[in-house]
Amino acid sequence: MTISQAERRDIDAARAETFPTRRPTVPALEEILFQPLPVLDHGFVRAVDYMGDDGAVVQAARVSYGRGTRKVSEDKGLIDYLMRHRHTTPFEMAEIKFHVKLPIFVARQWIRHRTANVNEYSARYSILDREFYLPDPKHLAAQSAVNRQGRGEVLSGAEAVRVLKLLKDDSNRVYDHYEEMLNETPDGTPRDAKRRGLARELARMNLSLNFYTQWYWKTDLHNLFHFLSLRADAHAQYEIRVYAEAMLEVTRRWVPLCHDAFVNYRLGGIALSAKALALVKALLAGKRVGQKESGLSPREWREAMAALGREAG
Amino acid sequence: MTISQAERRDIDAARAETFPTRRPTVPALEEILFQPLPVLDHGFVRAVDYMGDDGAVVQAARVSYGRGTRKVSEDKGLIDYLMRHRHTTPFEMAEIKFHVKLPIFVARQWIRHRTANVNEYSARYSILDREFYLPDPKHLAAQSAVNRQGRGEVLSGAEAVRVLKLLKDDSNRVYDHYEEMLNETPDGTPRDAKRRGLARELARMNLSLNFYTQWYWKTDLHNLFHFLSLRADAHAQYEIRVYAEAMLEVTRRWVPLCHDAFVNYRLGGIALSAKALALVKALLAGKRVGQKESGLSPREWREAMAALGREAG
Amino acid sequence: MTISQAERRDIDAARAETFPTRRPTVPALEEILFQPLPVLDHGFVRAVDYMGDDGAVVQAARVSYGRGTRKVSEDKGLIDYLMRHRHTTPFEMAEIKFHVKLPIFVARQWIRHRTANVNEYSARYSILDREFYLPDPKHLAAQSAVNRQGRGEVLSGAEAVRVLKLLKDDSNRVYDHYEEMLNETPDGTPRDAKRRGLARELARMNLSLNFYTQWYWKTDLHNLFHFLSLRADAHAQYEIRVYAEAMLEVTRRWVPLCHDAFVNYRLGGIALSAKALALVKALLAGKRVGQKESGLSPREWREAMAALGREAG
Amino acid sequence: MTISQAERRDIDAARAETFPTRRPTVPALEEILFQPLPVLDHGFVRAVDYMGDDGAVVQAARVSYGRGTRKVSEDKGLIDYLMRHRHTTPFEMAEIKFHVKLPIFVARQWIRHRTANVNEYSARYSILDREFYLPDPKHLAAQSAVNRQGRGEVLSGAEAVRVLKLLKDDSNRVYDHYEEMLNETPDGTPRDAKRRGLARELARMNLSLNFYTQWYWKTDLHNLFHFLSLRADAHAQYEIRVYAEAMLEVTRRWVPLCHDAFVNYRLGGIALSAKALALVKALLAGKRVGQKESGLSPREWREAMAALGREAG
Repeated sequence: MTISQAERRDIDAARAETFPTRRPTVPALEEILFQPLPVLDHGFVRAVDYMGDDGAVVQAARVSYGRGTRKVSEDKGLIDYLMRHRHTTPFEMAEIKFHVKLPIFVARQWIRHRTANVNEYSARYSILDREFYLPDPKHLAAQSAVNRQGRGEVLSGAEAVRVLKLLKDDSNRVYDHYEEMLNETPDGTPRDAKRRGLARELARMNLSLNFYTQWYWKTDLHNLFHFLSLRADAHAQYEIRVYAEAMLEVTRRWVPLCHDAFVNYRLGGIALSAKALALVKALLAGKRVGQKESGLSPREWREAMAALGREAG
Repeated sequence: MTISQAERRDIDAARAETFPTRRPTVPALEEILFQPLPVLDHGFVRAVDYMGDDGAVVQAARVSYGRGTRKVSEDKGLIDYLMRHRHTTPFEMAEIKFHVKLPIFVARQWIRHRTANVNEYSARYSILDREFYLPDPKHLAAQSAVNRQGRGEVLSGAEAVRVLKLLKDDSNRVYDHYEEMLNETPDGTPRDAKRRGLARELARMNLSLNFYTQWYWKTDLHNLFHFLSLRADAHAQYEIRVYAEAMLEVTRRWVPLCHDAFVNYRLGGIALSAKALALVKALLAGKRVGQKESGLSPREWREAMAALGREAG
Repeated sequence: MTISQAERRDIDAARAETFPTRRPTVPALEEILFQPLPVLDHGFVRAVDYMGDDGAVVQAARVSYGRGTRKVSEDKGLIDYLMRHRHTTPFEMAEIKFHVKLPIFVARQWIRHRTANVNEYSARYSILDREFYLPDPKHLAAQSAVNRQGRGEVLSGAEAVRVLKLLKDDSNRVYDHYEEMLNETPDGTPRDAKRRGLARELARMNLSLNFYTQWYWKTDLHNLFHFLSLRADAHAQYEIRVYAEAMLEVTRRWVPLCHDAFVNYRLGGIALSAKALALVKALLAGKRVGQKESGLSPREWREAMAALGREAG
Repeated sequence: MTISQAERRDIDAARAETFPTRRPTVPALEEILFQPLPVLDHGFVRAVDYMGDDGAVVQAARVSYGRGTRKVSEDKGLIDYLMRHRHTTPFEMAEIKFHVKLPIFVARQWIRHRTANVNEYSARYSILDREFYLPDPKHLAAQSAVNRQGRGEVLSGAEAVRVLKLLKDDSNRVYDHYEEMLNETPDGTPRDAKRRGLARELARMNLSLNFYTQWYWKTDLHNLFHFLSLRADAHAQYEIRVYAEAMLEVTRRWVPLCHDAFVNYRLGGIALSAKALALVKALLAGKRVGQKESGLSPREWREAMAALGREAG
């Protein structure tokens, strides 16, 4: 994680102050509020604001006048019920805001989640830093042989060295030229007084997709769970999954009852199709069913057997 | 406004507690937090939670690490700039949640604003109270003669008396029959032990559109302003406008700089079409232009003259 | 279903014309285009426009230049894959528009689906007809004894007669008074020349929630499926489920491959929580597991046993 | 514009076929349907499907049973009225789908418009072509001296030559290395049989932001107008504005009445703040008002004077 001293001072100053409020407050989240959690080589996620807690979900489900919560066991029962039956609107009543620093190619996946509010650092307006993502060698994987959209084995040492050298050299070179085209120094004077600098909105196009950008990203708990169900999943690209995992941990601190319900009913669960359900029923009834009789395609059959902990044979 | 004693106790208990938080906090809003503001005869609006303040808008626009605000005059200048140039995303970074009690026909207009989170009291699940809206005689207006979608003069005394009697009698009668069909008393025992009660999800259909419902409604500041620009407007139906006005006042307490920018640039401003702009330019240049030459339709001409403070002739 | 002669003529005139287009076209849907499908006593659903077909989903998934489809078996395989792995965006590339006539209490549930476009007939602007929903006696059910949000047994004959009489009389009475307050005849002259009519936006509040309204409702296929997964479900209230069923049938004509994938992977399938999945694995492995050891609550256990076709004991 | 022969054949084949439909059809749009309109050096926009026409807007506003249109002059009057009074929902009833090829940095701005459906060509799954944007020398502008987010004068010849050389060389080099890291040839065999190729989802990060991507993008007319009002505006970056201009022209063919209303009431119009309106009224009344008395900031004053065609002095 790369944070300048000035940025660190701003964060520490914000963390040093507290104010009284009548709003629901979550001490476990307050503890890490504003604190950047490192992700990848230069990135981070930090929670910068939140609205509501487990009780806010309960309160909205009951449309109640006071805090709305009763005994923890009753609240837990209600939250489990809401999650199980996909009564999603009460989970929209809690809101969280993150400040995220992330590579541009990760940002491009992330932004596809539309039900969120975003303010991104503008490279039309400002100058990006020389910060780019280089994968750790243990994540430098070959194209998967079985899945067109995934990774296979880790590259060998020599191959990894070559790839990292290409990525690093190219990143530095495109940034050198970005700076040259801009012709600006941090204090605003030109680097070369005889030249005009290229407009920032144009110069940025020379940067590659592993450069870091940053944004404020705000969403409600229901849509955060939807994001996490896709991005904390094993099929997600590693580089976005690590952000999702950090955010899942923030969620555990913030709304522990909702978090547990999400992990049980969504993240750790599976969907059975009508045909897969019929298969499970038949197997439970002691019948022998093969792939052909099941109506599942060979691929679905393998996936189903794996999910159910059986051998595909 | 109608609030039961139990509800009042719940509200007072919530208001009595405060907690320390690192989050931005707005004392002027905390002062009225949870407090119902009366609207119409039985309704209310009350702010039950919020996230962010004027500074949150500034902070998001700057993607800053600390609180993000500088001098008030700089923050005001930035907020005015954002509002003027319709840079709307920073205003999405502040969020507010209301608990609202409102007639169903008002709820039906309100719900058309889709970018919000809603949990409504369920008449499938619970029983509605005998609370219905009766207009104050001074708002009992005749159909407008010039605008198919609006009100004209107030009804005369005898006419008003007749209308109010019809509304009141019918409301009471449909509620009597609702209760009869439900066949339930508040403690759950049947009113008439010899009968089954009709399912709540069916019985509710006998209630009329002036009955009160209630919901939790949460939205971000940008979408709240959009709501207010349409519903605090003179063209809005009176019964929803009074809710918008109460919420505008809450907004003034919560984010005074944003509120002022909104009032100046949106609520109190007007849009000039290309043709109306050409007309204004010509008039300012001292030319005489009539409706025909302006290219405006007669109706637009009248509206434009009224907006510009000139006589239509 | 209630359609006036003028409305029927408009529909027939629209159905009589065809035009040449380069767009993807679905003959099975064209066959019933504009045709109202009766729902409840006075309502209907009719498809009035559509964009795309099964091929549009395939084409978007492939970002292709031509029609994008290959062999039916390949298209089916891709659509099944997209549905199974919740790659939802290609399903957003097909769009459909319905004209729906429905009771107001049904409209109030329906409108909660926010990702759709809606234009509703305005009772601020126009006058509603004397059309209200009266349930068929076989759907007049008592409140469920086990589910606070559902129906139980059908009411007995005498009880049903009483309920229907109350509903019908009240509906007619509130409409009589609506007309009296409006003081308008269809041709615009006052009913009683000595009175002003109450503004339409006020008079409508006397109508009850079983009166019919109508709207144009447009959504994409992904969001339509989401709507259908909730509203064609057995837990949905009967009065909205019948609309969903009619729309599901339209979907079968329109996009048969997508429809079949939806029915198999969503509508007919179930979600297993992490705990329920562990239970299924254990049962398949021949272990004996009871409710306590499973970690499921008694209610979940019953639901799971029912879904898996086993006795709960 | 760069289109392969196979892509051109697919387009021509799609254009060659027509089908009969009962749906509203727009011959002027059918004429160019599927046809790519060149934008920038390698990009294009092409309309690939549409739903509705001017009449669909009218029909939805009237919730009508037939085609819904009357005389052109009546339809035009209604559409103007809807646009003027921001009755936006009827414009949501027409839908259009584009296939767009565009540089990644343009895609990053574009995607901020969230109310649209998108399927992008996946560089996790497929390999991007060697196609990158190089600005025409007449658009190679220096950073603006007065606006931190804009362009100033065009670069001189020698400066432009240097910038273009940097952009071109870097783009080619990062693509060479992308290919080397992938170690794949178009037919799938490895370039170097002794090496594994890096996973596509990783290799892509070496490409720069001027590389072309492509997507299907679908939205409704209201949201298209919102997009165009921001992106066909003089403040938009040139490279996205040219896409907006091409789409505005498509809109003119598709829905001419709506297009004209949009150009008059939105694109060519201005918003006057409350203070600016007071100023205009005062000026029209013959008063002399200076910047100080107006309450406008110096910058707003200059902008207002420019918009009203007066000298700022």
